[in-house]
Amino acid sequence: MRHILAPLVLVPLLLSFSPKSFYGVKSDAVPLQQCKSPLAQDASPPSPVNLWASLTTSETSSIQAWLGAPERQLNLTPAAESTLSDNTIFLIESYYPSKADALAHLSSPNTVSPPDRFARVTIHHGGDSEPSIKDYLVGPLPISEQTTMAPLTDIYRRDLPYNARGFISIVNELGAVFQQFTPELVAAIEDLFNATFQGGVNDTLTAGGGGPFSFDGSFRRVWVFWKRLVPGSWLHPISFFNYFDISGTDPSQWRLLKIVYNNQLFNSSDDFLHAYRNGTLERPTVSDPSDASWSSRKRVGSVRDLDDLPGPRSVSFAGLRFRVDRDRQYVSWMGWGMYLGFDRDMGLSLWDIRFKDERLIYQLAPQEAVTQYSGTDPMQTTSAYLDRFFGMGSDVRDLLPGYDCPQESVYLPATTYTPLGSVTVEKAICIFEQDTGKPITRHMGDPQESGAIKGYVLVFDYTFHFDGTIEVRVSASGYLQGGYWQPQNDAYGCKIHNVSMGTVHDHIMNFKVDLDIAGQENSLLETTTAQEEITLPWFDDDWGQTVVQQKITRKFISNESDVLLMYPPNFQGHYSIVNQDAKNAWENPRGYVLHPGASPIHNTVVGSKRLLENANWARYNLAVSRRKDTEPSSSTMWNANLPGSPAVNFHDFFDGESLVQEDLVMWINVGMHHLPTAEDSPNTKTNIATSSFLLTPLNYFDYDVTMESKNAILLTTTPEQQGGAYGFDDFGVNQSFNCIPEAPPPFEYSPSATFD
Amino acid sequence: MRHILAPLVLVPLLLSFSPKSFYGVKSDAVPLQQCKSPLAQDASPPSPVNLWASLTTSETSSIQAWLGAPERQLNLTPAAESTLSDNTIFLIESYYPSKADALAHLSSPNTVSPPDRFARVTIHHGGDSEPSIKDYLVGPLPISEQTTMAPLTDIYRRDLPYNARGFISIVNELGAVFQQFTPELVAAIEDLFNATFQGGVNDTLTAGGGGPFSFDGSFRRVWVFWKRLVPGSWLHPISFFNYFDISGTDPSQWRLLKIVYNNQLFNSSDDFLHAYRNGTLERPTVSDPSDASWSSRKRVGSVRDLDDLPGPRSVSFAGLRFRVDRDRQYVSWMGWGMYLGFDRDMGLSLWDIRFKDERLIYQLAPQEAVTQYSGTDPMQTTSAYLDRFFGMGSDVRDLLPGYDCPQESVYLPATTYTPLGSVTVEKAICIFEQDTGKPITRHMGDPQESGAIKGYVLVFDYTFHFDGTIEVRVSASGYLQGGYWQPQNDAYGCKIHNVSMGTVHDHIMNFKVDLDIAGQENSLLETTTAQEEITLPWFDDDWGQTVVQQKITRKFISNESDVLLMYPPNFQGHYSIVNQDAKNAWENPRGYVLHPGASPIHNTVVGSKRLLENANWARYNLAVSRRKDTEPSSSTMWNANLPGSPAVNFHDFFDGESLVQEDLVMWINVGMHHLPTAEDSPNTKTNIATSSFLLTPLNYFDYDVTMESKNAILLTTTPEQQGGAYGFDDFGVNQSFNCIPEAPPPFEYSPSATFD
Repeated sequence: MRHILAPLVLVPLLLSFSPKSFYGVKSDAVPLQQCKSPLAQDASPPSPVNLWASLTTSETSSIQAWLGAPERQLNLTPAAESTLSDNTIFLIESYYPSKADALAHLSSPNTVSPPDRFARVTIHHGGDSEPSIKDYLVGPLPISEQTTMAPLTDIYRRDLPYNARGFISIVNELGAVFQQFTPELVAAIEDLFNATFQGGVNDTLTAGGGGPFSFDGSFRRVWVFWKRLVPGSWLHPISFFNYFDISGTDPSQWRLLKIVYNNQLFNSSDDFLHAYRNGTLERPTVSDPSDASWSSRKRVGSVRDLDDLPGPRSVSFAGLRFRVDRDRQYVSWMGWGMYLGFDRDMGLSLWDIRFKDERLIYQLAPQEAVTQYSGTDPMQTTSAYLDRFFGMGSDVRDLLPGYDCPQESVYLPATTYTPLGSVTVEKAICIFEQDTGKPITRHMGDPQESGAIKGYVLVFDYTFHFDGTIEVRVSASGYLQGGYWQPQNDAYGCKIHNVSMGTVHDHIMNFKVDLDIAGQENSLLETTTAQEEITLPWFDDDWGQTVVQQKITRKFISNESDVLLMYPPNFQGHYSIVNQDAKNAWENPRGYVLHPGASPIHNTVVGSKRLLENANWARYNLAVSRRKDTEPSSSTMWNANLPGSPAVNFHDFFDGESLVQEDLVMWINVGMHHLPTAEDSPNTKTNIATSSFLLTPLNYFDYDVTMESKNAILLTTTPEQQGGAYGFDDFGVNQSFNCIPEAPPPFEYSPSATFD
Repeated sequence: MRHILAPLVLVPLLLSFSPKSFYGVKSDAVPLQQCKSPLAQDASPPSPVNLWASLTTSETSSIQAWLGAPERQLNLTPAAESTLSDNTIFLIESYYPSKADALAHLSSPNTVSPPDRFARVTIHHGGDSEPSIKDYLVGPLPISEQTTMAPLTDIYRRDLPYNARGFISIVNELGAVFQQFTPELVAAIEDLFNATFQGGVNDTLTAGGGGPFSFDGSFRRVWVFWKRLVPGSWLHPISFFNYFDISGTDPSQWRLLKIVYNNQLFNSSDDFLHAYRNGTLERPTVSDPSDASWSSRKRVGSVRDLDDLPGPRSVSFAGLRFRVDRDRQYVSWMGWGMYLGFDRDMGLSLWDIRFKDERLIYQLAPQEAVTQYSGTDPMQTTSAYLDRFFGMGSDVRDLLPGYDCPQESVYLPATTYTPLGSVTVEKAICIFEQDTGKPITRHMGDPQESGAIKGYVLVFDYTFHFDGTIEVRVSASGYLQGGYWQPQNDAYGCKIHNVSMGTVHDHIMNFKVDLDIAGQENSLLETTTAQEEITLPWFDDDWGQTVVQQKITRKFISNESDVLLMYPPNFQGHYSIVNQDAKNAWENPRGYVLHPGASPIHNTVVGSKRLLENANWARYNLAVSRRKDTEPSSSTMWNANLPGSPAVNFHDFFDGESLVQEDLVMWINVGMHHLPTAEDSPNTKTNIATSSFLLTPLNYFDYDVTMESKNAILLTTTPEQQGGAYGFDDFGVNQSFNCIPEAPPPFEYSPSATFD
């Protein structure tokens, strides 16, 4: 995941200088001037307040102190000192204002004050007789006499079972299960796997846990799997699994329920040790390779021709063309403007996205990412992760400058709360402008028809095009959750090393797009094409009296009961959000259309108990619902462990309401069916493991607005008219502009994450 | 269409200098050195002979002279002086050697001579009593005593009907139909459309012709449509159509069969003029706008913020990293190498594509491009173009340097024969290396696991990735074939201006990929996934005794009768070419898999008489057949006008032969369903109008070979281990390398096409 920004530096407005004066010269002539530093210029957000900004660490500290005051009667224990039977703060995060309040301010930022700022607080009530998780609304902020606290029931409508909780400390909690291991069991493991596992620095085995932990909150159980502790440990699973009951708040009550070793089941540690001792245990016939370096990212193999040289580097010789307000987390480029938000669960979100002075999208935000595995072992067979649970935002690490993002990128920080302290990651997000390498339009014909417009885009997790198109693309890399290879696993994946396999799995990720097309009142238009046979008077005997051709059918879907949608077969048609009351000059309703990109898929498996009702959005390519403040997301972090009784059931959004000229939200999926191959080792490749969709204008304008571009060429006269060469207009933009670029800084990577 | 490459300049081998000595410095220190010129270095093709090179103009001249000698008895008339009833040379082109002969040479280029060079010659036998088109094989070349000429019957197996012929001069031939227009008819047209049409420089109307012209060669008839002669004339059709019979070789026999004006049919010019004079002609209620500038490519609208500045420019500071042999038309990059071919019909093709010293693809070549329209007027209803007919290769024009391709691109010329002379286009093809803006792999975890590999690709029409992936992408831009807007056309498109519409149509383009995976003996593997319910012994009551999950099924398709294929629903699975006898280290057959990219579609309409049997490949997503020298292409230029009796019927390739460990060809489609909107005006945009597929390794290797990259970063130690920052390995490639780049040359565009 790539996320954003820019040091706060005032750069003189580049618009005021003439590129001509910096014209590139040969080395034997006047020396070139230095290029401007690649720093983003200041932006001008519509409002000086980012209504969706993360809480600062001082805000969360003051809320934490306020919550801990005796009069709150919360009986809180600081997370670092807490046990599961304590009351503990799990999360303090910005709670977004209602859309109505936000728009009231944004429509008149100078006269209407910003809505009050609130925090959402999640508390683990481990100390209650019926332990539970509760969400509270705290505000207004900053803390004052007016600040109150109230249960946040609008979204989940109930308290959540404690067995579905997130980890205060995953190491502490899962570490506790190994108290169940006797020294005899540890010794047997070490012998069977020729490994060390003493919980120390010399360990050569490590463990992980699958998921989900629960069906409906009535229990918390986990399959623990084992792998060799080497670089790329995910590709070194061993055939050893333990099933633990970790329900409740008292680790002394936790129990080891099952052991599976090399496909043999034991219902207790004693049974397993008995078989181990009496020689009835069947050991694998193939042993693990002693050299595990193949799974590291160390360079291998011969050097490709000329790969000793650095590849091409993009330079904005005349300065960066996008603007960033680092404090307010606001970015603008070529008529686009947007605020940035960032949360624990899903990371970066975009707000109040405007194009050419009109709001296009109120919110664009990832919602959830499901990964569902298959196989024959306890780990692959039972894994169905919803990554929101783990905190895709709080898991963000600094980007590798120059490698994860091009050299000229501007980086932005992100702050998230964790139970052990707020974390600020300095290079959480990168932003850069990119030449796509192909013109966005071109034509070669007569003068005035012939020309091309350069294909620049602004990229961070989202790609903004000059024509008003937004591209959302997710690319996967990193290690597979590997499996232990045995021939009976052939139908579930592919052997990728002696005893390692990649297991078939689906990745599906859901995005919320709250489009506002020429205002909030929008409708859902379904456009399909089909074959028809027609007769027209001028048809003749030579070709027959009929023609078979395409015909378009356009239909407004008026009701929420018909909006769990698949792309049409052969992609014959599309879905769009249009405003029936706002027409372009040619009497067509202004709209934006969803254009599927790479890998337009939905989840393969339907009806798995581990995803029974908690990821219903994954069954479709897209869905459209009425926009409600009380339906902010298609998922929650607790959905992961509540497949039978999810905190949010996506299907509940679709309750038969009208969709005609209402505020609508598109819920759109990207994903991939991942059938691993040897080439996924050591890491999956982003060029294949990629999925995308585009939102592009559909009669939103009267014509293609890329025609506004000055980074374009127009042939104006023929060679015959003008001395052998075509006349042309380059609109005064000197594409040959040259200067001496700054050398990018040398690579350096320090952990910027700080706990406050 | 973007095509390739490089001035023949010897650049010292960059591998021999150390980037360190050129290390980037601040401006106040030692001045930077000049960068190397962005010229491609010399390549080393496997053979010094490009077996698929186009004929040179001197070769075609000598063949032309030889054909014209009296002893050939061809009774040829030079094309420029010919009439339709003459014998004329239409085409002289390189005829590719048999694959067996080519591979024999390539396997031992020093000991086995290249196969004899042959030309294919197409002659229009207009002077015969039964006029026809015949293809001949002429060779060996150069012309000598040994040179002979023989009918080329291996591919079409018959002479082709004269009514299906290509144009010697489209202007002359279609111009002749207007001899049918009386001065009265011209005057009426001028009055009705407030326009001038005298065939001179002051004309404000122009005409075009639809297609196909024939069903089976028994006639040649054309719907002529009219449009206003302004920049972007395609968007200014008027509601006036004429149907001409242009069968045979005698233009004096040609006849105007029908006139359609504003949806009214007239079976003769007299009937039309009668209605015109007596006032019964119904005229359109909306008049055309007087200002037609909206359809030009002139810049319009306000200037976007900072668009006065040129955007980012990619610079290979340490020199280009790809190699080009301009004379032999051979390109290499990062382990890839390939020869280029170029022909009249379809332009660029790639041959003997090798990756890491193994042949991967013998031939990769576009085959045909169909565009089928729909509507209610005679033009849109009847248009089904096969662009091979028009010569996509001979239509190639110079690329707009810096706009069609990035500034650093290397350009290559292409030569094609036309009846009026050979044409060389200097900048027909561009090649450049590009940073994709995202790493091809990355992972952030422990040291030795954490790192990223930069995502460089080599781009021309085809994109080559570092991991062995080839991406084929086609993007469309330029003018729509517009329609005349009237409300009854609503089901066939979209109004885009007062009286202009964009009409729904499909574009489908077919590619031939002759894969050789570890040799020529390959098989077709179908991999699908489906849901299954399984029981395993360790399942417990908490989650139930069964699991619903995915299962993979792999099946070799053994027979050509089952290989006209669609992508599976929800893309659950894929098709690959594998070598069952060549296994990777993990015992899986080495293969390459077809990965659909953007817009993976097939043609919507099946059974149209205008595409009855001549574009059968367009009905599917892909097909796989036995590779034969006698089935070189899925189409021919004459297929366009022979839908009922095509020169090549793609379905004939599939005659039940075995596909098990045979030489196989994949025939793969890209395309788009184009439902135009106002944003297609003036030109369609390449970001949306794009389609692609990828061919990517499938257990071809034992691991991901991007791990060979030196343009990569690896974290090696933790901050705790080494003074607060991560240790890292950058493999000696200095990503901060800096120097003073050359300014790109100022834009200049001269027509380079030369007739010889």
